[in-house]
Amino acid sequence: MSNKSVLAKSTIAIGTHIVLPENTNTLGNLMGGQLLHWMDIASAISAHRHCHRIVVTAAVNNVSFQHPIKLGDIVTIEAKVSRSFSSSMEVYMEVFVEHHTTGELTKCNEAIYTFVAVDQMGAPIPVPDLVPETEDEKRRFDGALRRRQLRLVIAGKMKPEDATELKALFIAS
Amino acid sequence: MSNKSVLAKSTIAIGTHIVLPENTNTLGNLMGGQLLHWMDIASAISAHRHCHRIVVTAAVNNVSFQHPIKLGDIVTIEAKVSRSFSSSMEVYMEVFVEHHTTGELTKCNEAIYTFVAVDQMGAPIPVPDLVPETEDEKRRFDGALRRRQLRLVIAGKMKPEDATELKALFIAS
Amino acid sequence: MSNKSVLAKSTIAIGTHIVLPENTNTLGNLMGGQLLHWMDIASAISAHRHCHRIVVTAAVNNVSFQHPIKLGDIVTIEAKVSRSFSSSMEVYMEVFVEHHTTGELTKCNEAIYTFVAVDQMGAPIPVPDLVPETEDEKRRFDGALRRRQLRLVIAGKMKPEDATELKALFIAS
Amino acid sequence: MSNKSVLAKSTIAIGTHIVLPENTNTLGNLMGGQLLHWMDIASAISAHRHCHRIVVTAAVNNVSFQHPIKLGDIVTIEAKVSRSFSSSMEVYMEVFVEHHTTGELTKCNEAIYTFVAVDQMGAPIPVPDLVPETEDEKRRFDGALRRRQLRLVIAGKMKPEDATELKALFIAS
Amino acid sequence: MSNKSVLAKSTIAIGTHIVLPENTNTLGNLMGGQLLHWMDIASAISAHRHCHRIVVTAAVNNVSFQHPIKLGDIVTIEAKVSRSFSSSMEVYMEVFVEHHTTGELTKCNEAIYTFVAVDQMGAPIPVPDLVPETEDEKRRFDGALRRRQLRLVIAGKMKPEDATELKALFIAS
Amino acid sequence: MSNKSVLAKSTIAIGTHIVLPENTNTLGNLMGGQLLHWMDIASAISAHRHCHRIVVTAAVNNVSFQHPIKLGDIVTIEAKVSRSFSSSMEVYMEVFVEHHTTGELTKCNEAIYTFVAVDQMGAPIPVPDLVPETEDEKRRFDGALRRRQLRLVIAGKMKPEDATELKALFIAS
Repeated sequence: MSNKSVLAKSTIAIGTHIVLPENTNTLGNLMGGQLLHWMDIASAISAHRHCHRIVVTAAVNNVSFQHPIKLGDIVTIEAKVSRSFSSSMEVYMEVFVEHHTTGELTKCNEAIYTFVAVDQMGAPIPVPDLVPETEDEKRRFDGALRRRQLRLVIAGKMKPEDATELKALFIAS
Repeated sequence: MSNKSVLAKSTIAIGTHIVLPENTNTLGNLMGGQLLHWMDIASAISAHRHCHRIVVTAAVNNVSFQHPIKLGDIVTIEAKVSRSFSSSMEVYMEVFVEHHTTGELTKCNEAIYTFVAVDQMGAPIPVPDLVPETEDEKRRFDGALRRRQLRLVIAGKMKPEDATELKALFIAS
Repeated sequence: MSNKSVLAKSTIAIGTHIVLPENTNTLGNLMGGQLLHWMDIASAISAHRHCHRIVVTAAVNNVSFQHPIKLGDIVTIEAKVSRSFSSSMEVYMEVFVEHHTTGELTKCNEAIYTFVAVDQMGAPIPVPDLVPETEDEKRRFDGALRRRQLRLVIAGKMKPEDATELKALFIAS
Repeated sequence: MSNKSVLAKSTIAIGTHIVLPENTNTLGNLMGGQLLHWMDIASAISAHRHCHRIVVTAAVNNVSFQHPIKLGDIVTIEAKVSRSFSSSMEVYMEVFVEHHTTGELTKCNEAIYTFVAVDQMGAPIPVPDLVPETEDEKRRFDGALRRRQLRLVIAGKMKPEDATELKALFIAS
Repeated sequence: MSNKSVLAKSTIAIGTHIVLPENTNTLGNLMGGQLLHWMDIASAISAHRHCHRIVVTAAVNNVSFQHPIKLGDIVTIEAKVSRSFSSSMEVYMEVFVEHHTTGELTKCNEAIYTFVAVDQMGAPIPVPDLVPETEDEKRRFDGALRRRQLRLVIAGKMKPEDATELKALFIAS
Repeated sequence: MSNKSVLAKSTIAIGTHIVLPENTNTLGNLMGGQLLHWMDIASAISAHRHCHRIVVTAAVNNVSFQHPIKLGDIVTIEAKVSRSFSSSMEVYMEVFVEHHTTGELTKCNEAIYTFVAVDQMGAPIPVPDLVPETEDEKRRFDGALRRRQLRLVIAGKMKPEDATELKALFIAS
């Protein structure tokens, strides 16, 4: 199965939530930790749709909370696999809030989580390649390699000089 | 109050949890999203101890899940502010699991969250400077500037060529 | 706003969940009550997208649980408004489970919830008309009148002989 | 055991709850979905007391929410089996709210759930007959047959002309 | 209202729960902390039925866990006020588990919680006297004075020599 | 292992929590039942650190709630084993709340829980002796014997005249 490639669009997973009092912090806004938990589930489903195996969270990268989300807001999380590497998958997410009376969507968050496909014993297993189609999908596919080198450099598993994609970003400039 | 500097050690916050069935995934291990939620609370308390104001999660950076955590494991999260910038605080966390019969601690996770201090209306307010004392605290204090440039570059709020600390990492090598 | 009619397709709301140990019953299957709760949220969001006002659950009708849903299954709830009446909206839902390794969807549940739009004091307010487009939407739009008469007869608020739509079902046969 | 008949009164199950902030919606009232969940547990216990076997939710019928239930209210759910059919049991519930200062009970909800008794593999098993004693119990016992025909007609498992009990309701009028 | 005395039997509150996976510990039994939480709610309702005011937990005394309660067990908590003192009420609880197939009840726990009635600002307010009727109620009514002295002695708010009821227990023997 | 004695200080367990809306009661203060649950977890971890075996809650003694804890407060629970008896351990806890702007700690609660160490079948197993070092530890170590006799007398498992430690308290005075 790992040889079959998968279209990015077939990995879309959507989670929709109402911010209830049980999800709020002292200011009456959505707790950051609650959103992190909801995003973990949405992105795990997306990764699962890519490989149809058990997936476990391997890393969380670059989550930024740009706008507070308020009690009663409707939150939509859209997750899509951006690239796969041997047994891991990078999932890109956007978080939208709907305006109460107009229904207009505001993007108030984006995040990248990485998952690993495992067997019943928890050992990593290979996953299919991802095929990006749209411009956005292609851009994220390319960026994923850079982010992966960044993770490996930060984790001390790759030397900065070997992180060619990443290095180019700074040398070129 | 924002002029008073704060010792790193006075911002330590410790969270301790038992992994119960309600916290587990299909494999019987701790859900990534649950740990992200627990870490959000531990790091928010650490940031609060730095500035004694309401704090909200601004970003999550570089969480890596290196070892599965099992049902019944005791999880200890140690959080400490690593550096502050005008109204934001970077919090560094380590996650430990205790061996059931020997009590030996294994570090199985580390994470960096960023918080912003806000007033009752949610507007950012200044926070005190952090004073690192130990070698570890100083190393993380220095690294925080590099990580901050990285966040700004990724968010498109800083040009790579202006990220001097970050650039040095690649040029030097 | 209540004069503007709304297309059925613009009221779609999707909820996606993984069945975790905390959602299961003694047999290790999804608790009925948990699914009822998830469906309440998905259908409330659908009703909200119809009227952009606060909505409260008014009735639950005809939920049938046809197949057990197992630990680890991915559950997708698709909700769409089927018809509106002055201040109430009937929402039709289908619940699907994905096959672990093929990704094939099995419909294992359907349900109808009714919501009322209210103002901040909880008083009912008018909602727009619904415009069905597809064959399925039209069939559910027609059936909604019959179901509404059934609810009113059961609640003792309508005499069986006045329930013309409902009566026809039995007389005709 | 399935040959032994059971008195209706021996299947009573009572659930009592305080509406806490974690149970409320945006208006500060009890979430419909939370009440559906509490009712699922109360009625499952009632069905269990009828057959002393594992029971799973088979259907929810005719839940109507007539009055909002407020934060701090004490909610009492009274469940009692109204009739059994081979391996299924219909449970009738009433939901009461206590007035804060007088203790007076207001009925603000009623609901009917259906359960099926199953063995460890989830296969249906026979349940005892129910013996109604009071006038209310007898009336609900009779009504249960009509509701069962209604469910089967709606599910397309019975032709309207065969639903003799139900048909009489409309023909007679 | 505080002058009106209240019959013990009118303060009965019953809570019924199924032990679900989300309530269990590593051994698959009910978590002690979860039972303490359920008992807090049942006894708060009982105290509320005594005084019809807001009540807050003041103390927990003498909870003993004699038998493990297993996954899938049905737990019934019966709470009744045993005595009132100016603004506080002692609530006595018994916890029963039903045998799966016979329905037989086993008492597996008893507990005493104390509540204080407060106004909206949290200040204590007087509560009615309790009138015990049965032998059990009278015995617990008498014991409550002894337990109260014990609490005050332990809290250092009463000298042992002034705890006349308590002292008699040891001197007499 | 049960022969090895353990220093009191090596059994310290710390739990830190923010009081979120989901933890509050009608007055917006921390629910008593929630605090009892948090204390159960902190003290279970402390008992586990004493014996490194599975521990189950055996009793709760003498919890007094002296000050309301408010929404947004940071709560720190410090647990330490005070004495062990064959297979049981008494754990002493203090609960502190931090002042929002000064960080000053106020002790607002103390509690004693008792745990039993069990094997996988739930049978009690011996635990090491505890060695108190500080004055506080020694005082609690001595008091534990008195509290144990009190528990046994209350449970009817010891005659008051045999509770020598307890009796002395009243005779002496």
